[in-house]
Amino acid sequence: MQPQRHDIEPEIVIADQLFADLQAASASRLGITRASYGEGEDRAHALMRALGRRLGLEHRVDAAGNLYLTLPGRNRALPGIMIGSHLDSVPEGGNFDGAAGVVAGLAVAARYRRLNRVPNRDITVMGIRAEELSWFPAPYIGSRAAFGMLEPEVLDRCLRHDTGKSLGDHMRLAGFDPEAIRRGERQLAPDEIRCYFELHIEQGPVLVQHDIPVGIVTGIRGNLRYRYCHILGAYAHAGAEPRSSRRDAVFAGSAFVERLEATWLDHERHGKDLVCTVGQFHTDAEVHTMTKVPGELWFTMDIRSADNPVLLECDRTLRQEAERIGAERGVTIDLGPFTNALPGPIDPDLRRTLLRLAEELGVSALEMPSGAGHDAAVFAISGVPTAMIFVRNEHGSHNPHEAMRMDDFAEGLRLLMAAVEASDASPSTSGDASIG
Amino acid sequence: MQPQRHDIEPEIVIADQLFADLQAASASRLGITRASYGEGEDRAHALMRALGRRLGLEHRVDAAGNLYLTLPGRNRALPGIMIGSHLDSVPEGGNFDGAAGVVAGLAVAARYRRLNRVPNRDITVMGIRAEELSWFPAPYIGSRAAFGMLEPEVLDRCLRHDTGKSLGDHMRLAGFDPEAIRRGERQLAPDEIRCYFELHIEQGPVLVQHDIPVGIVTGIRGNLRYRYCHILGAYAHAGAEPRSSRRDAVFAGSAFVERLEATWLDHERHGKDLVCTVGQFHTDAEVHTMTKVPGELWFTMDIRSADNPVLLECDRTLRQEAERIGAERGVTIDLGPFTNALPGPIDPDLRRTLLRLAEELGVSALEMPSGAGHDAAVFAISGVPTAMIFVRNEHGSHNPHEAMRMDDFAEGLRLLMAAVEASDASPSTSGDASIG
Repeated sequence: MQPQRHDIEPEIVIADQLFADLQAASASRLGITRASYGEGEDRAHALMRALGRRLGLEHRVDAAGNLYLTLPGRNRALPGIMIGSHLDSVPEGGNFDGAAGVVAGLAVAARYRRLNRVPNRDITVMGIRAEELSWFPAPYIGSRAAFGMLEPEVLDRCLRHDTGKSLGDHMRLAGFDPEAIRRGERQLAPDEIRCYFELHIEQGPVLVQHDIPVGIVTGIRGNLRYRYCHILGAYAHAGAEPRSSRRDAVFAGSAFVERLEATWLDHERHGKDLVCTVGQFHTDAEVHTMTKVPGELWFTMDIRSADNPVLLECDRTLRQEAERIGAERGVTIDLGPFTNALPGPIDPDLRRTLLRLAEELGVSALEMPSGAGHDAAVFAISGVPTAMIFVRNEHGSHNPHEAMRMDDFAEGLRLLMAAVEASDASPSTSGDASIG
Repeated sequence: MQPQRHDIEPEIVIADQLFADLQAASASRLGITRASYGEGEDRAHALMRALGRRLGLEHRVDAAGNLYLTLPGRNRALPGIMIGSHLDSVPEGGNFDGAAGVVAGLAVAARYRRLNRVPNRDITVMGIRAEELSWFPAPYIGSRAAFGMLEPEVLDRCLRHDTGKSLGDHMRLAGFDPEAIRRGERQLAPDEIRCYFELHIEQGPVLVQHDIPVGIVTGIRGNLRYRYCHILGAYAHAGAEPRSSRRDAVFAGSAFVERLEATWLDHERHGKDLVCTVGQFHTDAEVHTMTKVPGELWFTMDIRSADNPVLLECDRTLRQEAERIGAERGVTIDLGPFTNALPGPIDPDLRRTLLRLAEELGVSALEMPSGAGHDAAVFAISGVPTAMIFVRNEHGSHNPHEAMRMDDFAEGLRLLMAAVEASDASPSTSGDASIG
């Protein structure tokens, strides 16, 4: 039953064609552009729906525009299996980030159809809307809406960066129903979902560096995000102001970044998962000059961990350091407000199943955390047993140069197919013991 | 002979009126604007020339537009005494930076006239053009032109930041003769100048902090200026890129600034004069985001010392640190080209004379380095015995809030008058021994 590489050749052909169609449908100046609730995303949904129709899958679209393509199971009352990912992209991004997971889900359904097999339970492929933060500054819009978890104010307050129109307006213009989302109506109920799988290209270099085609995700990192960190010192003459009376925002900022890095290293030494990034760091272009002591500095912080208490402990440490450095240097370091996206716990049984299956299939796989956020985190936080498979990808993601090889995709797909079969065979709602 | 406070009341009245006229002639939106070769500077020169005429001083204007107002001495063949400063200001600056030195010079001449005294040698008050770097990015334009030291390419390559026109064009449009400067013609010969005095408001807080009205400058700091420091790392996903493969430009930049500060502290501990400023420090506004490891950073450095070998040693240390940090962190730290303005040595005999006279006059004075550059440095480097007097000033300079009190100006003026008299009395070309 377990698919070897040659067993899935017809599905690889389908997937390859689908990737080519996606590329043609959403090519932009430099790469691929599938704006959330925009033309490219709509075309991607249409391509998936068309393949679903050819495969005889049931289809429905929810209030947020998420697409569900269902291969009906023998017993439709059983909690179903879901496979999904998002179909939007960043501006001028690549073809695989997001789409690979939906294509993989359809390939799973295609194989059932080709072998004339009917699963015990429904298998639903979900094409999720609006995951990329570059369009609307709110995380996981489509998947949160599906679970009735999207805050109503997001519909009004989040404006798309290029159009200036609100999320609610964009949903309405695309033919969906933001009022239903506002009322908290939901499409998905966690207890009706047996499990959720998401296959995604790796967005970092880990699999390339280890020369391994497939990753089995151990946890999806949550984050703390500080968009408005600010240091207020005092501008002064670069030659005439003595060191003792300087209130230098750049020296203070550098000292703070040094402590951030030390905090990171300290956590690493204690085996705690943490990554820290100061993506923006700048003096005031209107006022700064070479010959003035800099009086102000702005920066952002993005701090991630698979373990939320680690994030909150990190926040406490950084606030203490900001206070201390500020007092020492006569400046105010204000970290400002932050948002906290919870880590998405991976189901330990599913993770063990994936590991075991990879070994049985001869799929070379590496366990690794997901540094990036994924819709899978929403399923996991909602209580759905969730797992993720990464596929090796060169040059990172969110750029036109992302490069996933189809041979690697095939390895990830084999593992996904085996995991879906195992979950389908299991009578329980979760648990490796009963799957084996 | 030595002027007490009440002895110079008529000169203080003249100075006060002149400051008020300057204020009225060059008030701009927020403060004072006297652009180099612009309207405000022209008006300031006209006001000085008018007072010179009322005082019966000879006047001439050189090829660069510098103004010379001369009180003829008994023996016109003797090397003369010069008193001067610049008459331009930064955009939206204050009324005293620069102008105070020219006003002080005219007050010295006014007192000679009022007392019907004729000095032994010529006393020339010089109103210098284009000292503030904010208009043309070249130091000491007016005073260097007067000594035939201005590089011809500066005339063509230096564009005024607001008009985009070259320095040469601005000189020509203002009625001066850039071609004479290009040929290296000079107005001033060092061996014809007995000594040069410049009175200037202090641009830092030292005199305010010490509650002392007058500073006697020990040396004018030179500088190294790096306008184009650049760190090249690599952009990457903030969540998915592991620490080991990051090439983070902000972490590297912060580590470099930390080493710059350590170098400064180390020099301070060894009693060496040094001040370091990183006035601009920024990621790329076009590319940076909160969720990307920053791949590039730009910054400037302004490093000053009264001791040029200290500057050059500092440059060597910083290049080594840049190399080391770059290698450790997989980034390139390129400090780029720098300019080196030489420190302006203060004549030790004149400095001793000023100290002695301050004590005799009961003028409370503090010895201190000049962190800022001044035209006095050009005279000093040219071999003219040079001294500077600082006057206490609140809120720093280069802003509309600079605040020099006339009582403090009067104290500086008394010291200047006494020093001019002493220099005039001395038969030598320099040396305290013969003045006393």
